[in-house]
Amino acid sequence: MVVRELELIAELRELLRGRDARVVRWLGDDAAVVRSRGYAVTSLDTMVDGVHFRSGELTPSQIGHRALAGALSDLAAMGAEPGEAYLALGLPSGSDADATRELICGAATLARECAVTIAGGDVTRAASLSLSFTVVGWVEDPGELVGRGGARPGDLVGVTGALGGSGAGLALLDAAVGEGGRAGAGSALGSVVGAGTASELHRRYATPLPRLRAGRALALAGASAMIDISDGLATDAAHIAQASGCVLDLSLSAVPLAPGVTELATALEQSPAVFATEAGEDYELCFCAPPQARAAIESALAALDDAWPAVSWIGRVVPGEPAGARFDGGPQQLAGYEHQL
Amino acid sequence: MVVRELELIAELRELLRGRDARVVRWLGDDAAVVRSRGYAVTSLDTMVDGVHFRSGELTPSQIGHRALAGALSDLAAMGAEPGEAYLALGLPSGSDADATRELICGAATLARECAVTIAGGDVTRAASLSLSFTVVGWVEDPGELVGRGGARPGDLVGVTGALGGSGAGLALLDAAVGEGGRAGAGSALGSVVGAGTASELHRRYATPLPRLRAGRALALAGASAMIDISDGLATDAAHIAQASGCVLDLSLSAVPLAPGVTELATALEQSPAVFATEAGEDYELCFCAPPQARAAIESALAALDDAWPAVSWIGRVVPGEPAGARFDGGPQQLAGYEHQL
Repeated sequence: MVVRELELIAELRELLRGRDARVVRWLGDDAAVVRSRGYAVTSLDTMVDGVHFRSGELTPSQIGHRALAGALSDLAAMGAEPGEAYLALGLPSGSDADATRELICGAATLARECAVTIAGGDVTRAASLSLSFTVVGWVEDPGELVGRGGARPGDLVGVTGALGGSGAGLALLDAAVGEGGRAGAGSALGSVVGAGTASELHRRYATPLPRLRAGRALALAGASAMIDISDGLATDAAHIAQASGCVLDLSLSAVPLAPGVTELATALEQSPAVFATEAGEDYELCFCAPPQARAAIESALAALDDAWPAVSWIGRVVPGEPAGARFDGGPQQLAGYEHQL
Repeated sequence: MVVRELELIAELRELLRGRDARVVRWLGDDAAVVRSRGYAVTSLDTMVDGVHFRSGELTPSQIGHRALAGALSDLAAMGAEPGEAYLALGLPSGSDADATRELICGAATLARECAVTIAGGDVTRAASLSLSFTVVGWVEDPGELVGRGGARPGDLVGVTGALGGSGAGLALLDAAVGEGGRAGAGSALGSVVGAGTASELHRRYATPLPRLRAGRALALAGASAMIDISDGLATDAAHIAQASGCVLDLSLSAVPLAPGVTELATALEQSPAVFATEAGEDYELCFCAPPQARAAIESALAALDDAWPAVSWIGRVVPGEPAGARFDGGPQQLAGYEHQL
């Protein structure tokens, strides 16, 4: 059934019911009204069909989840507690109403898991399906937040979790689509790593989890600079380096790879490093911290009851011009098609 | 010159320099950080080329202005003081860098006039030019805000300024484009109203001004319900009626028309009422208020030193089912292709 906008909006209100008590006005007025705390932390992330994902490779629910996860990941990278999200949804004419509902449900489910209220937005006709989430987090004291510009020579560089899984998951999806299939797990390429691993790699691409608790823990345990890995470690580490005016000297062999990435890269005759440092969209956190904060950071992350993400130390901050990130002393590589203002 | 995204982003930071002291982190970090006041009032408005405007009919600067004005108008309708704006900018591949800079400048100029800081956003590739502004206003006490649901039988219905100017301005533009020209003022249709009036009608369409001070004054003077006229008076009045569970009984002859609307409608063999009640995008305010607030409202609006907008009383709130808006006792009309969630 084709979307009829007024009906859709009425349904969306139903789908999104259930909100935090701090949200005193929301969907259905000219604006949402939210009781504030000390400082508002606001970010915005847009995903467009054909640019940031291909609608044929993801379910509508995954598309909704993934767009919100990408936006919330920026709050994780600041160490902010998430509060509300606002969605600008662009629908091509003839969009299917059931698929649109599924998309909203995918975002709403992740929002609930992250204690986020989707408190407003708009729906417009657009040439391609697009989702732009503005997300707002709150902190009492801006000193609790971690920006990109605080890294200092001598700091250690760490990452949460493991990298390359999202890029490998996308490679599996592309291969499956090439074979006429849909799910990554069933493809010939997927058999290289086995169904369980293929399925987990697919999940990392399709429904990444923003590292909100890890980001908050890192901020409180003394991280000096932090960014989420959306454009790829090479690019994102360079953002920290440039904002901090120094060099991030990283060791490729220390970069933690998600299970299956090496096998998959080998089967595709590529370097696993491409998945781990350039593919991006792992939505793990890259951060710097003075050596004396190392123990506090390790125990703070270990205390997260999801037992994940662990921390890997992948390099050091050193003085240098021009500021940038380099692996094993080599030149920095840049990738990625989207950048925050 | 074609846009190169990293360069563009560096330039945009320059263009947007100058920010309110409450904005403690902004462009260039993962998120903006803003010192809050009591309650955050947040709205979002998207404009897409070919849906909400035609890029051939507006300059890039007008496109930037208009998109931000549309979003800020929602804060006006709540009676909130504006604070920050965040832009999701979608650029087709091959977009011109100068035009993109002009577009940002158009928005930045209006932002300065309205004491708004453009504090963040993102730039992505998109199939069509699109601008989605999330705007945030602040109030100490949510009781100062005016929603859509507060109208009660017996209330008067008022509008600020004059209506139909934006629709008439668009008709002029469409006619000029049909004649191979560009500016509305020079067309054969424009000569019906004279160059000065044609130019003012064009301005109302191309660079509408959000009624922020009027909205705040109306909220403090006792308005019971309020909305901005973006979809057309018929539709927007019906939104108040539905949210309030009553009927807005309006008199078409009392609706204030912008100068030139009647002459232009006559030349186009249309009813002026179509421009005034259905074309929308005038971004004036439609509000309800108990009769005892009438004098306070009139003097509050008269005290705005821009001597504009005046107020016109166009009807009354009455009980009735189904809730809706009607003109001169007739059935309600609905128009508009975009709706707030």
